[in-house]
Amino acid sequence: MASKKNKLRVFSLGGLQEIGKNMTVLEYGNDIIVIDCGVAFPEDDMLGIDLVIPDFSYLIKNKNKIRAVFLTHGHEDHIGSIPYFAREINVPIVSTKLTLGLVDTKLKEHNLTQVEKICVEAGQVVEAGVFKIEFIRSTHSIPDSVALAIYTPVGLVVHSGDFKVDYTPIHGEPIDLQRFAELGRSGVLLFCCESTNVEQKGFTMSEKTVGAIFEEIFHQSPKQRIMVATFSSNIHRVQQIINSAANHNRKVAVVGRSMTTVVKTASELGYLDIPPNMQIDIAEIKNYPDESLVIITTGSQGEPMAALSRMAISEHKQVEIKPGDKIIISASPIPGNEKTISKVINKLMSKGAEVIYEGLTDVHVSGHAKQEEIKLLHALLKPTFLMPIHGEYRHLKHHKQLAVDMGMKKENIFIMDLGDALELTEDSAKINGSVPSGQILVDGLGVGDVGNIVLRDRKHLSQDGLMIVVVSMEKDSGQVIAGPDIISRGFVYVRESENLMEEARNVVREALSDGNGSSEWSYVKMLIKDTLKEFLWQKTKRSPMILPIIMEV
Amino acid sequence: MASKKNKLRVFSLGGLQEIGKNMTVLEYGNDIIVIDCGVAFPEDDMLGIDLVIPDFSYLIKNKNKIRAVFLTHGHEDHIGSIPYFAREINVPIVSTKLTLGLVDTKLKEHNLTQVEKICVEAGQVVEAGVFKIEFIRSTHSIPDSVALAIYTPVGLVVHSGDFKVDYTPIHGEPIDLQRFAELGRSGVLLFCCESTNVEQKGFTMSEKTVGAIFEEIFHQSPKQRIMVATFSSNIHRVQQIINSAANHNRKVAVVGRSMTTVVKTASELGYLDIPPNMQIDIAEIKNYPDESLVIITTGSQGEPMAALSRMAISEHKQVEIKPGDKIIISASPIPGNEKTISKVINKLMSKGAEVIYEGLTDVHVSGHAKQEEIKLLHALLKPTFLMPIHGEYRHLKHHKQLAVDMGMKKENIFIMDLGDALELTEDSAKINGSVPSGQILVDGLGVGDVGNIVLRDRKHLSQDGLMIVVVSMEKDSGQVIAGPDIISRGFVYVRESENLMEEARNVVREALSDGNGSSEWSYVKMLIKDTLKEFLWQKTKRSPMILPIIMEV
Repeated sequence: MASKKNKLRVFSLGGLQEIGKNMTVLEYGNDIIVIDCGVAFPEDDMLGIDLVIPDFSYLIKNKNKIRAVFLTHGHEDHIGSIPYFAREINVPIVSTKLTLGLVDTKLKEHNLTQVEKICVEAGQVVEAGVFKIEFIRSTHSIPDSVALAIYTPVGLVVHSGDFKVDYTPIHGEPIDLQRFAELGRSGVLLFCCESTNVEQKGFTMSEKTVGAIFEEIFHQSPKQRIMVATFSSNIHRVQQIINSAANHNRKVAVVGRSMTTVVKTASELGYLDIPPNMQIDIAEIKNYPDESLVIITTGSQGEPMAALSRMAISEHKQVEIKPGDKIIISASPIPGNEKTISKVINKLMSKGAEVIYEGLTDVHVSGHAKQEEIKLLHALLKPTFLMPIHGEYRHLKHHKQLAVDMGMKKENIFIMDLGDALELTEDSAKINGSVPSGQILVDGLGVGDVGNIVLRDRKHLSQDGLMIVVVSMEKDSGQVIAGPDIISRGFVYVRESENLMEEARNVVREALSDGNGSSEWSYVKMLIKDTLKEFLWQKTKRSPMILPIIMEV
Repeated sequence: MASKKNKLRVFSLGGLQEIGKNMTVLEYGNDIIVIDCGVAFPEDDMLGIDLVIPDFSYLIKNKNKIRAVFLTHGHEDHIGSIPYFAREINVPIVSTKLTLGLVDTKLKEHNLTQVEKICVEAGQVVEAGVFKIEFIRSTHSIPDSVALAIYTPVGLVVHSGDFKVDYTPIHGEPIDLQRFAELGRSGVLLFCCESTNVEQKGFTMSEKTVGAIFEEIFHQSPKQRIMVATFSSNIHRVQQIINSAANHNRKVAVVGRSMTTVVKTASELGYLDIPPNMQIDIAEIKNYPDESLVIITTGSQGEPMAALSRMAISEHKQVEIKPGDKIIISASPIPGNEKTISKVINKLMSKGAEVIYEGLTDVHVSGHAKQEEIKLLHALLKPTFLMPIHGEYRHLKHHKQLAVDMGMKKENIFIMDLGDALELTEDSAKINGSVPSGQILVDGLGVGDVGNIVLRDRKHLSQDGLMIVVVSMEKDSGQVIAGPDIISRGFVYVRESENLMEEARNVVREALSDGNGSSEWSYVKMLIKDTLKEFLWQKTKRSPMILPIIMEV
């Protein structure tokens, strides 16, 4: 049994001072539980990187203490790192049905079929070591999302997951505000609360408002083929498209890999209600007139490989855009994607399609709580301590200000960095020490084998390309046997720059003769590099990577 | 004298179906005039590129016909290509005082001091071949902007430049709506009208509303040091910061290269009114208490080299951010810059500064007309034909719809592509043929020497790096004399991947022995490349650029 003297430690390995790869850990004595296990998408300067996952080293080191992973919902930034985690650490994964369904697809793709999964419903309580974890019904832009109440030896911790307060959700019941109120009454030690939309005033509109807009658009477009692009995980949105299609006697076809997978999983598990004979295969659309069709597609973020983007450049096998098509992009641009989305819109419109997107019409609502909703949960829970999570520094800071404005003491609010450990007793909390944390980069099959040096080289190569100088030299005399040959890539268009290349070769020849028969290769290489670098900068104001190679013969 | 049978040709070499590098050309018989000469900023996939300029080849070929360049205002996307143009084509540049002042700085930087500049005021008319060009007072986010009325042998063409309808501008008088009305009465053949904000409903707020917000913020911050980041060219904005500083007895210091240059030019030319003894050098700020200081800085777009970004990472020599600083980012993110700006905000806030930005407070207004303003100009001018300019396809298309909704005939509206020539007579217009057009990439000193092949290589190198294989082989026998050596950059962290490198070398050795003494080097290279590519994909799911080099000895 855990000693009464132990303290609870709470830390995050993702989602603090960054967006994505959310992961929060609670540790007490010999017990650890993990909440969420997400991925982040690479920053612009992480060239060639596919995914970013949390640094699991602390968890791997303490794997014997870990009792389970609890997942709040099925979005990538909450479940995407599960395969990388499960490779290293074999513990049960506990969550609701849809979330586990999505995790399952992921695990199968990685051939990780041995992982134990425990399915729960909102309202249930699960024991894990000294902890008891209660699942609380929540609302978000994916069904089956939950918040967690974690009963620990020092008091109650509430983790919001991602949420909005939707009084009229598409599936199931609204967020369980009464339970939050009861928990608040009984006393909450720490509230870990998401911060995504904390800078935005007011209340996020209900998902249902988008359905009303869909109805209006469908009503106004009796003859046109309708296509809707959205996040595949937004099953509420997909349901509302299906509802409008049903109301207007249209068949529905689904296109795009993730959309097909998610629609299949969600239908099988009962989270999508598609009337019988309504869904058709995308290959069948040619058998139906435009007015009888709705196509639901991926690509709402302008991702170059997604179905909608390929349609926009006429590279999609099954769907060809034609004048009169009505295309709804039912999503907000994730920051950084604005330009790629705009490109897709331009191309679709230049094919004669009518494109409806945010800014023109309200075809999207957020899944995250704005200020008034966050205040509501604060008011119901009245926590002693607050740890804002899921946000960049600016969001965490604004969350702190919101709590202070509601009367919370500044010193009870903790803006933390990745790895920082918040140490709690029954009546105190302070940041004390930290665990290793960071960003592990996934590139192809490699996990963590691309670090700063490799990224710096990629950056350098991407800016000015490279120039390779090869010389065969005699071992003892340092005499040139063959070369210098110069090969460049990504620097200038060589055919039009023959003079420059010939001059460069001469510059290297001179450098070699200055080297005066030295057989100290590192010295000769440095000489080539410095001389050539200076020459190229003078001539072009560019600095390609220069790689001198000496073949000793 | 031009034959009566000639037709007017209007085409754009920039600003159509793209944002930036605005340039419109009018040609009639032996006369050509050019309107604006801007740059665009590189797209994300133009790795290493500094600037994008229009393809001038048609103009160079017809340089003897060109009478002058007319500039509507001094923004980079309207004047930035002048140095590249002036190198090739020597014609007068005609514009208002501030615009020419900014052009002059640019020409001096490029050692192009021989260019003739003709300074005009709104209301003046200039002759250029068969054309007469009238300058019409306009309002935009830089002073001295004009629209142009061009009297041609076939009728009147009006070019809007960039504009908003600001009834209470900071400098000078409002946009000359009466003159637009008169021109409309007299009959307008063609209206070339900007489209930037055509997707936005309503009316853009007056620049003056930002001044009121500044006053409020200054009033609420009596003790804090105040910093404001904005576009250096937004001289109205700078004036309003100075006004608030004067009202609150604060000194003003300016920081950032472009801000310093523009403030100097604008003050000298009388476009900025700085009370005597008010401006101090940035090096002097340490001599003043926080409550007596305002710092105006560059960096509102999060540009990594700009002053504000360097302050955010403590790399600015003269300004150190400290807790309590109040920093206003008085600008909107240009699409694509959202994430870099957010990074700067996070860093400034984590140093304890309070940062105010769009989304929190209305510290910025656009310089471009929204729907109601565009409609106003249409209603005043009542043009026979319309050519929407300055926008991506989506903007041009929405502009067309706006005009149709106002009663214009569809067939009188021309959504054109770069280079498309609109041919006009007194009563007709049609697209007929095109001139060469496109994007010329500037990289360092190179103009146009980086094309698709070089960019493709840079992209490839940026994603997975490269692997160089060098072998010395005997000329006749094809026997290996030295190597194979393998050098990689940007692929994997080599120290931790020694096994992989050794295996790769073995794979190459095998390929060479399969080559079986062939001295057909292209065959041997192909063999190395294919074998290694396959091996690396299997092992890593990555495809670095593979460069086999054979040194013939």
